[in-house]
Amino acid sequence: MPVLNPSARPVPLSPTLAINEAIAHKRREGKPVLALGFGEAGIPIHPALTRELAGAADRGAYGPVAGSAALREAAAGYWGRRGLPTDPDLVVCGPGSKPLLFALMTALGGEIAIPAPSWVSYAAQAAITGAGAVPVATPPGEGGVPNPALLADAVVRARAAGRAIRAVVVTLPDNPTGTLASEGTVRRLCAVAREHDLVIISDEIYRDLLHDPARAVPSPAAFAPERTVVTTALSKSLAAGGWRLGVARLPEGRFGRELRDGLLGIASELWSSAPAPMQHAAAYAFGEPSELVGHIDRSRRLHAAVTGAVARRFAEAGARVREPEAAFYVYPDFAPLRDHLREAHGVRTGAELCTLLLDRYGVGVLPASAFGEPADALRMRVATSLLYGDTDEQRLTALADADPVSLPWIASGLNRLTEVLADLKAASGHTLAPALAG
Amino acid sequence: MPVLNPSARPVPLSPTLAINEAIAHKRREGKPVLALGFGEAGIPIHPALTRELAGAADRGAYGPVAGSAALREAAAGYWGRRGLPTDPDLVVCGPGSKPLLFALMTALGGEIAIPAPSWVSYAAQAAITGAGAVPVATPPGEGGVPNPALLADAVVRARAAGRAIRAVVVTLPDNPTGTLASEGTVRRLCAVAREHDLVIISDEIYRDLLHDPARAVPSPAAFAPERTVVTTALSKSLAAGGWRLGVARLPEGRFGRELRDGLLGIASELWSSAPAPMQHAAAYAFGEPSELVGHIDRSRRLHAAVTGAVARRFAEAGARVREPEAAFYVYPDFAPLRDHLREAHGVRTGAELCTLLLDRYGVGVLPASAFGEPADALRMRVATSLLYGDTDEQRLTALADADPVSLPWIASGLNRLTEVLADLKAASGHTLAPALAG
Repeated sequence: MPVLNPSARPVPLSPTLAINEAIAHKRREGKPVLALGFGEAGIPIHPALTRELAGAADRGAYGPVAGSAALREAAAGYWGRRGLPTDPDLVVCGPGSKPLLFALMTALGGEIAIPAPSWVSYAAQAAITGAGAVPVATPPGEGGVPNPALLADAVVRARAAGRAIRAVVVTLPDNPTGTLASEGTVRRLCAVAREHDLVIISDEIYRDLLHDPARAVPSPAAFAPERTVVTTALSKSLAAGGWRLGVARLPEGRFGRELRDGLLGIASELWSSAPAPMQHAAAYAFGEPSELVGHIDRSRRLHAAVTGAVARRFAEAGARVREPEAAFYVYPDFAPLRDHLREAHGVRTGAELCTLLLDRYGVGVLPASAFGEPADALRMRVATSLLYGDTDEQRLTALADADPVSLPWIASGLNRLTEVLADLKAASGHTLAPALAG
Repeated sequence: MPVLNPSARPVPLSPTLAINEAIAHKRREGKPVLALGFGEAGIPIHPALTRELAGAADRGAYGPVAGSAALREAAAGYWGRRGLPTDPDLVVCGPGSKPLLFALMTALGGEIAIPAPSWVSYAAQAAITGAGAVPVATPPGEGGVPNPALLADAVVRARAAGRAIRAVVVTLPDNPTGTLASEGTVRRLCAVAREHDLVIISDEIYRDLLHDPARAVPSPAAFAPERTVVTTALSKSLAAGGWRLGVARLPEGRFGRELRDGLLGIASELWSSAPAPMQHAAAYAFGEPSELVGHIDRSRRLHAAVTGAVARRFAEAGARVREPEAAFYVYPDFAPLRDHLREAHGVRTGAELCTLLLDRYGVGVLPASAFGEPADALRMRVATSLLYGDTDEQRLTALADADPVSLPWIASGLNRLTEVLADLKAASGHTLAPALAG
C-alpha cells in the first residue's frame, strides 16, 4: 500500500481549526462548552455586505489572478487612508490572507523569522515550503514583533551555519497576545531588516480592531517601504472568515514588481483567483462606506469590553495577564500558580493545562506551545468572541449594547469562567460539577 | 535590496491564465481578438445556482476544513450515482480542485508522473512542491493517461537513479486533447500503479462534459479503489470557475484515512476552508436537481457542436485533428504544414506559431509546449468556449439552439478562423488584413 510522504513530517490540523472542530464535536454530543479557542470574530456579517455578495452571485468567470481592478483600487484607497499610499497594481488578492502568506513565503524562499509567540500558521506554512521558521522572542508586552537585537543575532547565526533567513513576519496588532508593538520597536526591526536585507511581511489583519481607535498602528511599510509586504483580509474586522478574501500590498520599486510577478506565478498555479463574488463585496468593503465603518466601531467596542472583562477574571484567579489592546484575544499566564497546578492537578505543561480545561470543564483554549512557546509555558490564548452569543440575535444585541458584559448570556459565560478558574485553584480540583453552563 | 528566492526558478504566470489576461488586454486596447486560449466554460451560471449562492450570502463562519457535512454528503451522492460509492467522511472540499491537487502532491511527497501532454498546472505544482513531475507520453488518441508500459519504465528508471515517483496523475476526460482514454488503458495503468505502489490522482473535472452521455468514463477509482483519489469541481460543467469550489474523493481503507489526515493538515494551513456560501450552493449542485442536469446536457451539446465545427475548420486547413470527444477543447497538429510554416512564416516551434496567430491575427491559442510537449511540436490547444457569445444573452441563445454553429456570432467566429487558417496557408502570410473580425 502507498504511504504518506516519508521524507516529511505530516502536517497536523492547524490547532485553531482543530479546537474549533473539537468544541463543535463536544457541543453536538450535548456537552456544555465554553468556546474560547477559535479566532473567529463572533459577529454576524453586516447586511450591506451580504447584499453586495448576493448581488454578485452570478459572477462565475475566473478573472485576473491579481484580483479585479475595482477591488485593487478599493484596497489601495483603504491603505492610502491609513498613511500608506498604494499603487493598485501592487495589490494582489487571494482566497484569504493565509494562502497569500504561504505564496509569499514560497516566492521568497529561505527561512522565515517569526515572532515567538505568533499565530499558529506562520511556522506551519514555513515548514510546508521546506525552509522552516526561526522563532525569535518578542519584547515584553510587545507581541507580534521579534526583538530586533535577537533577530539580528538569529540572522547572523543562521548565516554562520550556512543557512539564510530571508524574511521576517510581524503581526500588528498581535495574535495571540492582543498587544501592539511600539513604533520604536518597529523602527528598530526595520533597521535590522535593512541591514540584513530581509523582507518584512506585516500581517495587519487586526489593524482596525485596535481597541483605542485614536492610537496609530506603526506599520513597517511606513519605515521600510521598499521591503515590506502588508496583508489584511475581511475575516476579522468584518467577520467574514468563511468568505475567504484577503489582499496583499507589495513593496514599492523594482523588488516589489519582481515579487509581484513571483507571487502571481505561484498564485496562478495554487488557486487561480479569489472567489469573484467575494471580490465584488470586498471592493465595497474596502471603500469603507459609513455603515460598515460604524459596524466595525461597534465590534471594536464589544471586543474591548469583553476582552477586558475576561482579562480581569483571569487576574482575579491569580494568573498574570496584560490589559488587552486589540482584537478578541487575552493571553494569561498561569506561572504564579505553577506549583499548585502541579500538586493539585498533575499539570506541568501548557498543553496539559488546556486539556484539563477542555476535558473537565468544557473550556476550549489553546496553549502557548501552539504558538511556538516552550511546552512548560503555562500561558494560553483565550479568544473571547464566541462569548458574544449563540444566535445572531444575541450577537447583534451585544454589538449594540453600551454595557455588553452585563447581558445575561455574556455574564453567564464570564461567571462560568470565574467558577472554573476558582475550581482550578481549589486544592483537589474536583469540587465543581463539570456540566454547569450550556 | 532583497531578491527573489535564489534557489528556485520563479514560477511564471500559468499559461492558461496568462493568455486570458493577454487577450483581455488586447480587447481593452480595441484590437479584434478570437479568444481560444482559456479553459473557461463560456456559459452563464444557471439562475438556480445563483439563487442558492445569494441565499447563503450571510454565511461568514469558517466551518470545518473538510467542508460542510451537507456538501460532503451531496458529493458522495454524486459519485455514488456514477458507480463510485463514497463515504462522505472521505470527501474533502477546497477552494477549487487546483489547490486540492497541490495539497495532495504536498501530502504525498516525491515525484509525480503526469501525462504528456497534460494540463499546464500539474507540472508547475509539482515543481513548487520541490519534487517535480515526470512527463510520460500518452497512447495515440488516449490523452490524459500515461502509456502504462512507459510509466512502468519511468518508475523503474527513477528508482535506479535513487529517485521516487510516488503518484501518477490522469485526466479523464482529458484537457488539452479533448479525448477519453479507454477502459483497457486505465486498467493497465491501475495494474502498473499497484505493482509499483503509486497513488493515482484522477482529475475528472470534465467527466460530465463527455459529448456522448451514454459512454462510460473509466475511473481508476473503480479498478484501484485503495489508491485512487478523484477530484472534480463546479468550474467546468457548471461554469462556476470564479466561485472556487472543488472536491476530492479519497481512497477507501487505511491509506485513504491517513491521506485524509495529511491533506486536511495541509489544507488547514494553506486555505482554512472553502468559501462557505459556495459550499452551500455546491451541496445543491452535487445533489443534481433536474434543472441543473438539463443545463449541463445543453452545455454538453453546445460544446460538442462547436468543437466539432472548429475541428473541421482545422482539418480543412490541412492540420491533423481528431474528432473531439469531451469538453471544449480541440488539439490540432500542424505537422503536415511544417515545411510551409517555416518557409512562409519562419515558424519552427509551436510557440512561434501561437505567437504569430496572436500577434498577426488576434487569435489566442496555447502551444503544445505549454502542456509539456516538445518545443517543435506544432500542436496547440484550441478552447472553443469563448466563441459562444460576448454577452449572456448570446450565450443563453447558443445553449438553447439546436444548431448553434449557425448563429451569426458563432458562425462569424468560425469564418474568421477559416480565413486566418487560409491566410496562414497562403505563401507569404501577408494577404489578410489583421483586423477583420471583432
